[in-house]
Amino acid sequence: MDLLVIGTVALDDIETPYGTRKDIVGGSATYFSYAASFFTTVGVVGAVGGDFPAEYLDLLRSREIDLSGLEVLADKQSFHWAGRYEGSMESAQTLSTDLNVLENYRPVVPEGSQKTSFAFLANAEPSLQLSVLDQLEGTRFLVCDTMNLWINNYLDGLKQVFARVDGIVINEGEAVMLTGIDNVVAAADALLEMGPHTVIIKRGGHGSFLRCREGRFAIPAYPLTAVKDPTGAGDSFAGGFMGYLASRKSTAFADLKRAMAYGTVVASFDVEDFSLDSFRRIQRCDIESRLGQFEDYVRF
Amino acid sequence: MDLLVIGTVALDDIETPYGTRKDIVGGSATYFSYAASFFTTVGVVGAVGGDFPAEYLDLLRSREIDLSGLEVLADKQSFHWAGRYEGSMESAQTLSTDLNVLENYRPVVPEGSQKTSFAFLANAEPSLQLSVLDQLEGTRFLVCDTMNLWINNYLDGLKQVFARVDGIVINEGEAVMLTGIDNVVAAADALLEMGPHTVIIKRGGHGSFLRCREGRFAIPAYPLTAVKDPTGAGDSFAGGFMGYLASRKSTAFADLKRAMAYGTVVASFDVEDFSLDSFRRIQRCDIESRLGQFEDYVRF
Repeated sequence: MDLLVIGTVALDDIETPYGTRKDIVGGSATYFSYAASFFTTVGVVGAVGGDFPAEYLDLLRSREIDLSGLEVLADKQSFHWAGRYEGSMESAQTLSTDLNVLENYRPVVPEGSQKTSFAFLANAEPSLQLSVLDQLEGTRFLVCDTMNLWINNYLDGLKQVFARVDGIVINEGEAVMLTGIDNVVAAADALLEMGPHTVIIKRGGHGSFLRCREGRFAIPAYPLTAVKDPTGAGDSFAGGFMGYLASRKSTAFADLKRAMAYGTVVASFDVEDFSLDSFRRIQRCDIESRLGQFEDYVRF
Repeated sequence: MDLLVIGTVALDDIETPYGTRKDIVGGSATYFSYAASFFTTVGVVGAVGGDFPAEYLDLLRSREIDLSGLEVLADKQSFHWAGRYEGSMESAQTLSTDLNVLENYRPVVPEGSQKTSFAFLANAEPSLQLSVLDQLEGTRFLVCDTMNLWINNYLDGLKQVFARVDGIVINEGEAVMLTGIDNVVAAADALLEMGPHTVIIKRGGHGSFLRCREGRFAIPAYPLTAVKDPTGAGDSFAGGFMGYLASRKSTAFADLKRAMAYGTVVASFDVEDFSLDSFRRIQRCDIESRLGQFEDYVRF
């Protein structure tokens, strides 16, 4: 196994202008691992309740995703999130968050996965991310996500996380909030000073921006005339990004750039339908085909 | 003369976090023509008052900008705009607008300029843009700008303009407002249905997007750690874009893409200082050098 993700496997209720879905499979580790599975072998650390449909676990296993780190607690309910998107659908309105099985959950990385070369800490409370960091050994490229809630309430813990990871993936607004710098290019420079040597700023429909020791890189979003459900776009991006890097066993600047292009293309598939519906219809060749179109789209 | 711009030549008061300037040279035609002058010969149609400093006119003439279409009305004051930028400086807060010489002004295109191959109608009330359209003959590539004020109040006139031009340059928010479509890719498709065969959507610090008959293209903004004064960025972009096309005597898709890269780079110089201060320090070779860096920045 080349890549590990520590995150949520959830059931979601989603409302968008394109429809409403109840109890569909979601969660950061779900989107991340499925996206990464187009490129490499990936393992999941997380927990679900006894209510979690076996068909969804089978779906992930069918992608050769290692679920040995996914605890199934039969007497609990799965983590459940309900959200609504409106207008340009750039951000979700959270309708409810039920932690359920994740209440008091502490991630345990299986012994065989502790030395995985590439790992992604999906958005979680910083103390949980730190407890995972204590369990990993010699990870070559360790990347974390976060959110405004932790920036506002657990900034000290978050800074400890940043000091110990190689890369961070963060939204534009969060980067500004965290650094107090309105200019996103300068904000990325400031984030680099906090520890990570690779900073990726996600800009939703405007693409993403990379700052690393070797330089800067920017990429637009893939042009879609309709976004049906943006849930999981950021985690799908991260999964494509990390999956490609793990498959290349590289974090060279040129590979980081290309990995961002793959992440962008994979995320573009995700948002074309609810849950994993679009992913289930595609194969690696579809990603390559769209990547070719994307190269034309940005080349001048 | 290969390129004509019909727009404002103004005196501006500008406040940004980087300082305050009073009565500095500004206006859409000023920024556009200076930006275009790095690439081609350009003429200006507009009007200034007797108060307009001769040194500014000399500055434009030093760039071989043809001012035969710039009326100087000695007994009037020049158009004056005062604005303030805060935070990420993506949009200006208008403090005052004094039309002065532009009150009841009707643009007159000099006879020798009516057959110019490339022309740009800077933001103006649609009836003024229509009166200019009546004066032009056989223009090969005619592009217009607009703003939310006309979308809200003179939509019929604006639609008449769109039906008669080849291209439009419009902000992302205006494109959404005009079409009622939140998805900017789909909004650009809808704008194409209104007449122009080339639609450029400006996204400020997020770059710009092109939709034309041959396809789509997107480009990020040039990465700057500090923007001192964004005034004129859009007109400088348009000037670089149109100037490059006029110099190539082409509107082929490949040239449109490259023109957007030039426009982006020229605009990046504009915003690094107040008024034309940054433009005055650079030459074409500086633009070429930054374009090279920009190509590296977006290539994967």
